[in-house]
Amino acid sequence: MSTTNRLIYLPLGGAGEIGMNCYVYGYGPEDRERLIVVDLGVTFGEMETTPGVDLIMADVKWLEDRLDRIEAIFITHAHEDHIGALGHLWPRLKKRVYARRFTAAIGRLKFEEHGHPLDVIHTVEARPAVIEAGPFKLQFVPVAHSIPESSALIIDTPAGRLFHSGDFKLDPSPVVGEGWNEALFRDIAAEAPIRALMCDSTNVFSPLPGRSETTLADPLHGLIANAGGMVVATTFASNVARLKTLAEAGRAAGRSVCLLGRAMQRMVKVGEETGVLTGMPPTIPAEMAVEVSRQNLMLIVTGSQGERRAATAQLARGRYLGLEMKEGDTFLFSSKTIPGNERGVGRIMNAFSEMGVDVVDDTNGRYHVSGHANRPDLEKMHEILKPEILIPMHGEHRHLREHAKLAAARGIAAEIATNGMMIDLTGPTPEVAEYIDTGRLYLDGSVLIGAMDGVIRERIRMALNGHAVATVILDEQDDPLGDAWVELMGLPEIGKRGTALADAMETEITEFLGNAPAKVMRDDDKMDEAIRRIVRQVAVEEIGKKPEVTVIVSRLIEE
Amino acid sequence: MSTTNRLIYLPLGGAGEIGMNCYVYGYGPEDRERLIVVDLGVTFGEMETTPGVDLIMADVKWLEDRLDRIEAIFITHAHEDHIGALGHLWPRLKKRVYARRFTAAIGRLKFEEHGHPLDVIHTVEARPAVIEAGPFKLQFVPVAHSIPESSALIIDTPAGRLFHSGDFKLDPSPVVGEGWNEALFRDIAAEAPIRALMCDSTNVFSPLPGRSETTLADPLHGLIANAGGMVVATTFASNVARLKTLAEAGRAAGRSVCLLGRAMQRMVKVGEETGVLTGMPPTIPAEMAVEVSRQNLMLIVTGSQGERRAATAQLARGRYLGLEMKEGDTFLFSSKTIPGNERGVGRIMNAFSEMGVDVVDDTNGRYHVSGHANRPDLEKMHEILKPEILIPMHGEHRHLREHAKLAAARGIAAEIATNGMMIDLTGPTPEVAEYIDTGRLYLDGSVLIGAMDGVIRERIRMALNGHAVATVILDEQDDPLGDAWVELMGLPEIGKRGTALADAMETEITEFLGNAPAKVMRDDDKMDEAIRRIVRQVAVEEIGKKPEVTVIVSRLIEE
Repeated sequence: MSTTNRLIYLPLGGAGEIGMNCYVYGYGPEDRERLIVVDLGVTFGEMETTPGVDLIMADVKWLEDRLDRIEAIFITHAHEDHIGALGHLWPRLKKRVYARRFTAAIGRLKFEEHGHPLDVIHTVEARPAVIEAGPFKLQFVPVAHSIPESSALIIDTPAGRLFHSGDFKLDPSPVVGEGWNEALFRDIAAEAPIRALMCDSTNVFSPLPGRSETTLADPLHGLIANAGGMVVATTFASNVARLKTLAEAGRAAGRSVCLLGRAMQRMVKVGEETGVLTGMPPTIPAEMAVEVSRQNLMLIVTGSQGERRAATAQLARGRYLGLEMKEGDTFLFSSKTIPGNERGVGRIMNAFSEMGVDVVDDTNGRYHVSGHANRPDLEKMHEILKPEILIPMHGEHRHLREHAKLAAARGIAAEIATNGMMIDLTGPTPEVAEYIDTGRLYLDGSVLIGAMDGVIRERIRMALNGHAVATVILDEQDDPLGDAWVELMGLPEIGKRGTALADAMETEITEFLGNAPAKVMRDDDKMDEAIRRIVRQVAVEEIGKKPEVTVIVSRLIEE
Repeated sequence: MSTTNRLIYLPLGGAGEIGMNCYVYGYGPEDRERLIVVDLGVTFGEMETTPGVDLIMADVKWLEDRLDRIEAIFITHAHEDHIGALGHLWPRLKKRVYARRFTAAIGRLKFEEHGHPLDVIHTVEARPAVIEAGPFKLQFVPVAHSIPESSALIIDTPAGRLFHSGDFKLDPSPVVGEGWNEALFRDIAAEAPIRALMCDSTNVFSPLPGRSETTLADPLHGLIANAGGMVVATTFASNVARLKTLAEAGRAAGRSVCLLGRAMQRMVKVGEETGVLTGMPPTIPAEMAVEVSRQNLMLIVTGSQGERRAATAQLARGRYLGLEMKEGDTFLFSSKTIPGNERGVGRIMNAFSEMGVDVVDDTNGRYHVSGHANRPDLEKMHEILKPEILIPMHGEHRHLREHAKLAAARGIAAEIATNGMMIDLTGPTPEVAEYIDTGRLYLDGSVLIGAMDGVIRERIRMALNGHAVATVILDEQDDPLGDAWVELMGLPEIGKRGTALADAMETEITEFLGNAPAKVMRDDDKMDEAIRRIVRQVAVEEIGKKPEVTVIVSRLIEE
């Protein structure tokens, strides 16, 4: 067994996708490395590939098999794609969790819901505070992002200093929390050379430098001051800085401000309780908002991505908590529509349009800025930190590839590492050490199922093809008792012949049963196969589709 | 019965959505108007709201009930959202079809597939040729768009001149076909005042003037000439001008050009046969392309929207017709991703990225221009035609509303008319005459089903909730014969208790059957309801979900 120590990086989620971030670092002899986990995030399910699935997270089987080697879990910030799986997966890992105050508070709310022990989550201070975890020494470095107290991580190891960027932008004045401080980052690089930078890649295709959160204040104030009726604005609930900017713009325009949606109220509450949010303008509850005249009212609401149960979608459907949109009102999406949500958000915009509401979105970039570093900002970070190695993370493959090219052009050794690729960072250039079998877990209702279990594949097939259920009852002599019975779900009742599709199937099955040889009638598998074939064949002829088929052969047994 | 004639406009599709265009005009005494139909288009189904549905089209029931009043069908151009339903719906209307040469040729290909008579489709010449249809006199006015021979329609009626814009842009040099000719449009307005303009609204939110197809030639040539390996470009098959521009750019860069995908080859063939496409550079078949060195080869392929079976998706999955993408190749999306297709197109981009292919899309607008008039172009059209009335069409509600506001700002009487709103154009301002019950038809496999039939709703529910099938067999005395049997589809096998979900359901049903009173056991509806409730309750407890349930109670009858 090798006694040479090595330094490894293993993304389990977030590398090759935007969402469900989960990264592992290790140091020690091969296969005995001590491990830390950075972030346990989720992705949201969607109809096309994961119908009915509530949340998607990295499968942590690899970690579960190495529980005795895990030192701790570190959470960089409280966005769902970084912390959303903590409550669901913690019982499988049961390790200490470290996070800064705001993030820890959100984590504890999740633990409360799950009934996990709250004292497992440790609140840590930002750099220069150091957390020791086995061979690792970590510091939380404040970065600007679209949620308070977002952090990068300095991970000092016996094999050198690593820098895990987390989600960040170079915003010197992010309204809430610490702004971009170039000197701090130059200090970090000067203290110890950066062996490897694991870096956010989300906006690598955005060619212009990112804009500051503060640039929104004037345009927002102008928009709200010039609006006639009620103004309603939506953004991500966790974007506490935006909530403050919106509320201030509303107040400056002489409007009472009401926050609608539990997620939003919770974020503001946690922000104030943890001291990260100060100076938030006073807001009024919905019960009072209904009494305020429209031109003096502004609502800030959840549901910027069109989520069905959030306030935005509720208002698009009609009255919500006594409030409703009317002709002359303004609805502002102070948010970006995440790819895949365009159609749902579009439906909401059209519903508002039908009510005579003016809908304003981020098309011209005046009312929203991104929370991620753009291409020139990434280049600046490369220049400041001067890492020997760069591993792009937090991106789809095309983002990772573009980011690696960007770094390579500067002479940095860059490697594309997607989920499951264990990278050895010990040598002069990054090397793929191993390919780990990774996967996804789906939270479906209240249970976690494996992405490859076949459950979701069956749902997709039923959605595309419909489901036919054929039942036959056989007596003790394997003779049919009565006729076959077919139930259809998600299939047209009438086929091409103009007769009922189920009847046509039943007729064909009954005919088959009348002629099938005894050895087929005795054999459940053969019966299943034959009846399935008949159902599909009739369906193809009658409706041009091959449905999913369930065959139920019931055999009466002599008692 | 009124003998006053009126002029009506009735959108059955395309007004309140982008897709499935179908517009009706009528003139005559109320409820006895003579009618013409303009366009019979489709929309494509998608997983979120129409899983398994191939095509969506306007329900023409209203027209079917008035067959004796329909004069003819006019098709403005050969895009699927204008002609795609012609083959499917013609048997329900059986009226003469008028279209220009290229469009008529595409229509006849569809009729051939359906086995409809080809001589029903009449090829018409452009203005000044006039087609008389009852009280209507129509002229096809050439407009630039992203397909050859696109046309606006002058519809002269005893109540004045209407102008139906069709899909258009103001492109003086569209590469293929007639360019924008302002004098022609000024002549049309000078000949007779325009009573009403029914106008394309697609790009009303695009603030800059539209760009010409010819502006793409130089950037495309530059991109292709500087590319190292194979170059593959995709665009809409029907964008014959783009195919020509791409092929010319490829040839100019010293590459052999190969068209991949049947739809593309068909469009070029029809374009050349009808004489609208001339000077298309020579292309080579796929069998020859495999022999050409990568740096000397350019493919132009179908599937810009990520369609699973088109060439783009096939190449993203691996080898296709002996050709495959490799490190150093370039893939160009010379197309816009239609909202809703982002995720699918993104998956393809990432697959190419994994192969080391450089993917170029229309992000910077260098390699694609839209086929629709932008906001300033719409304003120019309003200024030239000076209509008394403007009815926006070809847009979602927010597009229609914005377009109506734009026209109203110029003093034009504008009315938002969505599908089913019959507008009386006879008086000084447009008036809603009637609300028609409209709907959608779904082509599902080989049959047309109504959108409200419930079939698709069942599929969506199965996709979200899974499907449980419970069967029980009762004997002649209504006593259970054996145990209940549950089959699950799209549901996890194991629930919270760690036991099989189906077993837990069967146990509960069997227990219920043992205790149920005779009047329940005798009653199919009561049995169905009770068993359904048990299945759902067990599911909620075990997996936190309520599945769709089918209950099959089989009763043995004494023979």
